[in-house]
Amino acid sequence: MTYCVGMRLDTGLIFMSDTRTNAGVDNISTVKKMHTWAVPGERVIVIMTAGNLATTQSVISLLDERSKAPEERKPSILEAPSMFQVAREVGRTLKEVIGANATTGMEADGAFGATMIIGGQIKGSEPRLFLVYPEGNFIEASDDTPFFQIGEAKYGKPIIVRAHDPAMRFEDAVKLLMVSFDSTIKSNLSVGLPLDYVTYTGDSLAITHEERIEADDPYFQMVSNGWGEALKVAFDQLPEFKFD
Amino acid sequence: MTYCVGMRLDTGLIFMSDTRTNAGVDNISTVKKMHTWAVPGERVIVIMTAGNLATTQSVISLLDERSKAPEERKPSILEAPSMFQVAREVGRTLKEVIGANATTGMEADGAFGATMIIGGQIKGSEPRLFLVYPEGNFIEASDDTPFFQIGEAKYGKPIIVRAHDPAMRFEDAVKLLMVSFDSTIKSNLSVGLPLDYVTYTGDSLAITHEERIEADDPYFQMVSNGWGEALKVAFDQLPEFKFD
Repeated sequence: MTYCVGMRLDTGLIFMSDTRTNAGVDNISTVKKMHTWAVPGERVIVIMTAGNLATTQSVISLLDERSKAPEERKPSILEAPSMFQVAREVGRTLKEVIGANATTGMEADGAFGATMIIGGQIKGSEPRLFLVYPEGNFIEASDDTPFFQIGEAKYGKPIIVRAHDPAMRFEDAVKLLMVSFDSTIKSNLSVGLPLDYVTYTGDSLAITHEERIEADDPYFQMVSNGWGEALKVAFDQLPEFKFD
Repeated sequence: MTYCVGMRLDTGLIFMSDTRTNAGVDNISTVKKMHTWAVPGERVIVIMTAGNLATTQSVISLLDERSKAPEERKPSILEAPSMFQVAREVGRTLKEVIGANATTGMEADGAFGATMIIGGQIKGSEPRLFLVYPEGNFIEASDDTPFFQIGEAKYGKPIIVRAHDPAMRFEDAVKLLMVSFDSTIKSNLSVGLPLDYVTYTGDSLAITHEERIEADDPYFQMVSNGWGEALKVAFDQLPEFKFD
């Protein structure tokens, strides 16, 4: 499985993904699911992937080749005039790859399916965040829906719903996502460390931080252990229940 | 959907279930999923159900009829010599009902599937807690696995994993389950109030509390509102993250 979160903040965008891929529980590997393209001063694009690994790697490779080979450059996500067009191009490529592998064209629920979160900014417009479906269509984050999750989303959702605040600093957002990932990792073996994260400060048109949190990261360990204690304290602070 | 939790405590057993049933999002009703049988001083049996409503109602009716009609009384869960035999009988009935409806016999993942949590005590043995699968087989709770969830289990699991303590009082267990249900209700429309709960004090051989938490229950509202605040406080108490 996979767990990825992309989130809008007043200051910009933040992305976090795990790195575990598995075919059954007896065949696990570490694979990067966070991909970035940047033309400093002009555009920053971040894509996170969930789903069939052959599909997602193929899509990323196609996008990447088109961004490098001048003669096959169009349509390239590095030349798209807007983040909307980037999302369209990613959706089109995703649909094409799934269609090429599926026996009878695109199958949304089939084994070849994949979902992607795309975020970034192109000079002259706002930072934007999209969720691309296996069918190739997509939705955009808004003030009402400020974050997207893909993969194993349920375990880690309640804490984001409760603690997300668009005014939060990147530091607090990293902490929040670590708590959300820790809850997921504790409940689903197919989501695992290390974690990758990227922060993007709006209008900077360059990636602000791009880091990997390793399995032995002392801060992550502290959050993981401390959160259990903090939850117990929070729980005890709730008013006592009494039977009638 | 549905959300039910059955939990072992040092003092006995606790059960909580929601009451929402739905066929699509445009057809919802309230249905009791918590069923109790008690022969005071002799046995207490609690069953919670998740899955196809026709299946679960049919199983409960069959079990109930057998416990009432003297001439068709065997095998009755009120005469089974142990909770293990009660679980066997429930599993057999469940398999039979699913088999009668499915086109080609039992289909675990089919539309007729259902899962059940069974707990209780029969005089002379310990309180026991089981999870019955649609195939009719079942597993038992233990010190390592002290609770079972059925239905929409993921949103509400992290808080139970973190805060469950076998030594906790029933009052704290009700509070914990309310928090778990609240997280689930906030994330999945197909789980809804009112909630039913039953507590059973070990060796009492009578139901201790059997109550319904209505949608306007002031304590539940307080937990629901207070938990968001408590989580934020807990989150703030975690050590600050700093970028390198």
